[in-house]
Amino acid sequence: MDVRAAVAFASQQPLSIETVQLEGPKSGEVLIEIKATGVCHTDAYTLSGADPEGLFPAILGHEGAGVVVEVGPNVRSLKPGDHVIPLYTPECRECEYCLNPKTNLCQAIRPTQGKGLMPDGTSRFSLNGKMLHHYMGTSTFANYTVLPEIAVAKIREDAPFEKVCYIGCGVTTGIGAVVFTAKVEAGSKVVVFGLGGIGLNVIQGARMVGADMIVGVDVNPGKRALAEKFGMTHFVNPKEVEGDLVSYLVGLTGGGADYTFECVGNTQLMRQALECAHKGWGTSVIIGVAGAGEEISTRPFQLVTGRNWRGSAFGGARGRTDVPKIVDWYMDGKINIDDLITHVMPLEQINEAFDLMHEGKSIRSVITF
Amino acid sequence: MDVRAAVAFASQQPLSIETVQLEGPKSGEVLIEIKATGVCHTDAYTLSGADPEGLFPAILGHEGAGVVVEVGPNVRSLKPGDHVIPLYTPECRECEYCLNPKTNLCQAIRPTQGKGLMPDGTSRFSLNGKMLHHYMGTSTFANYTVLPEIAVAKIREDAPFEKVCYIGCGVTTGIGAVVFTAKVEAGSKVVVFGLGGIGLNVIQGARMVGADMIVGVDVNPGKRALAEKFGMTHFVNPKEVEGDLVSYLVGLTGGGADYTFECVGNTQLMRQALECAHKGWGTSVIIGVAGAGEEISTRPFQLVTGRNWRGSAFGGARGRTDVPKIVDWYMDGKINIDDLITHVMPLEQINEAFDLMHEGKSIRSVITF
Repeated sequence: MDVRAAVAFASQQPLSIETVQLEGPKSGEVLIEIKATGVCHTDAYTLSGADPEGLFPAILGHEGAGVVVEVGPNVRSLKPGDHVIPLYTPECRECEYCLNPKTNLCQAIRPTQGKGLMPDGTSRFSLNGKMLHHYMGTSTFANYTVLPEIAVAKIREDAPFEKVCYIGCGVTTGIGAVVFTAKVEAGSKVVVFGLGGIGLNVIQGARMVGADMIVGVDVNPGKRALAEKFGMTHFVNPKEVEGDLVSYLVGLTGGGADYTFECVGNTQLMRQALECAHKGWGTSVIIGVAGAGEEISTRPFQLVTGRNWRGSAFGGARGRTDVPKIVDWYMDGKINIDDLITHVMPLEQINEAFDLMHEGKSIRSVITF
Repeated sequence: MDVRAAVAFASQQPLSIETVQLEGPKSGEVLIEIKATGVCHTDAYTLSGADPEGLFPAILGHEGAGVVVEVGPNVRSLKPGDHVIPLYTPECRECEYCLNPKTNLCQAIRPTQGKGLMPDGTSRFSLNGKMLHHYMGTSTFANYTVLPEIAVAKIREDAPFEKVCYIGCGVTTGIGAVVFTAKVEAGSKVVVFGLGGIGLNVIQGARMVGADMIVGVDVNPGKRALAEKFGMTHFVNPKEVEGDLVSYLVGLTGGGADYTFECVGNTQLMRQALECAHKGWGTSVIIGVAGAGEEISTRPFQLVTGRNWRGSAFGGARGRTDVPKIVDWYMDGKINIDDLITHVMPLEQINEAFDLMHEGKSIRSVITF
């Protein structure tokens, strides 16, 4: 079938709006009409050429929401008309990872997904007879896409696509890191490094679970007001701190934070986030993605005295199980997505969405079809 | 009272056997007759002068067992005749740390202990009118010592002092890291870096809790036989591995270990231990003490993909609560201490114990009084 898509022909080039060909779903696959998709830093990272796993030409996009149009053979959990969110982290419920309660990193289709292909080793997308790669198993920058059944979360039908698409990546990454990875308890003290979209979602996740103190750290004071709206109780601008930032944060939190989150991808911040966690029990969670080859360091004494260093991918969420819950939290008013979606535009303007992101003028731009 | 003690007058000098003066217990303190004490690498580390917190003159020793002789005012949990193990990590059951179930690092007397003093800010030991420092709050290289009540674990009376003194440090550090810090589950795959006393105790801890695969890593093949006796199922000599050790261990464990333990204090091994932990859920625990100023590093991707990096001090054990349990495990035959105590000697030969340690000829030397 003909599909309208933004094609990334090569890195460091604008996306090109094209009519491409999409094959129907094969066994275990579903065809989804994408109604809305967010434009995320990860798309920009791949488009920049810095992503060592980036493949071109490809249809990017991984933060979508839509409706099932057709199901292939052997699909049992979905039917046409179901409202869904595509999952770049699938949940097969059968692999060694899905059966281990400590992780959400289903590996069922990891090899083919990393190659930009469907699980059978082929692509459903083509242009003029030439194969286009899938991206993160989702390729939501198209008004139709095909996904494996295990990579689709069924959600309630009253949730607005142009809002809940953000749950496909950013919202879940931030809130999930608090709820599923760190399991922050009520009464906790939390420090969040970086007040972009992920940081704001970490903040509202911490508020939702009842954290007492939520410190936001960012060099941009312009981010303070919105962060406070999302639950930040204390703002720290490192540029205004005299002396050592870690010591300042340890003092502010009365000995260190119970939980800290790095939401930038800066390895120096990752160290500071660890070291301002409380001796004895503080957990520091890395969410941000560092540049290729960059390393984190600390003195082992930081760990031996009880700090815990870990990371979170897709918020530790199991997509088919947890994404529908987060949609409920949004619909119940427990979390705020509306104020994070700063721009809504049609697919034809998608390159503007990237420009807004690079200029720091958007939190999340959403493309509607 | 007159006490026979090994005094460390200065770093890098042999200990000197002296008759020193010991004041009786003040409020909240107890006088203990030390019956046996292990000689540990930490004593040697301080004696070497490398310990930045080392103080001289001092009475070293922190791995003792003995009998309460006298209790000061306001002591409620101990009485003369009680068999006890001194605790360098106390358990006050009242401080913020003791009341947090995630840590064992009671801070009740940390400031004075770090200064080589009793909680009231003075020393009980002196020689010819000159103050001698306490060490780690325990000073077990003396046939009598004074400790705060909160730093004394009461144990069963049928336990042999010359064996269970080792529970005062090494046994608890190794077994506790498995049981209390990592909480290794039955069926787990475990990799242990370093087959000295701590590593052997990690191994027998892993066996006790039902680990399926226990891999020991050491460059000295002479350590293999005893490690196997303690439960090691696979031995890896890095010198005999072609190519990358981490890749080899990941392959051997079928994807990585559920738990890894660094028992050497080598920062490069700490990195390898983290990186051979299983993607998604592997936990790596640092037990070894690195040199001052040394740092650990890794790519943050290792954590973002689900590995967990942490440390363990005194095995995560709460001394008054957990040390008596470990004594029971020994008396019930669940753990083996006898084969780890390679030498027993009187106090007068204590410098030989240090020599044996430095020459790698002992696992644990015990001084009996």
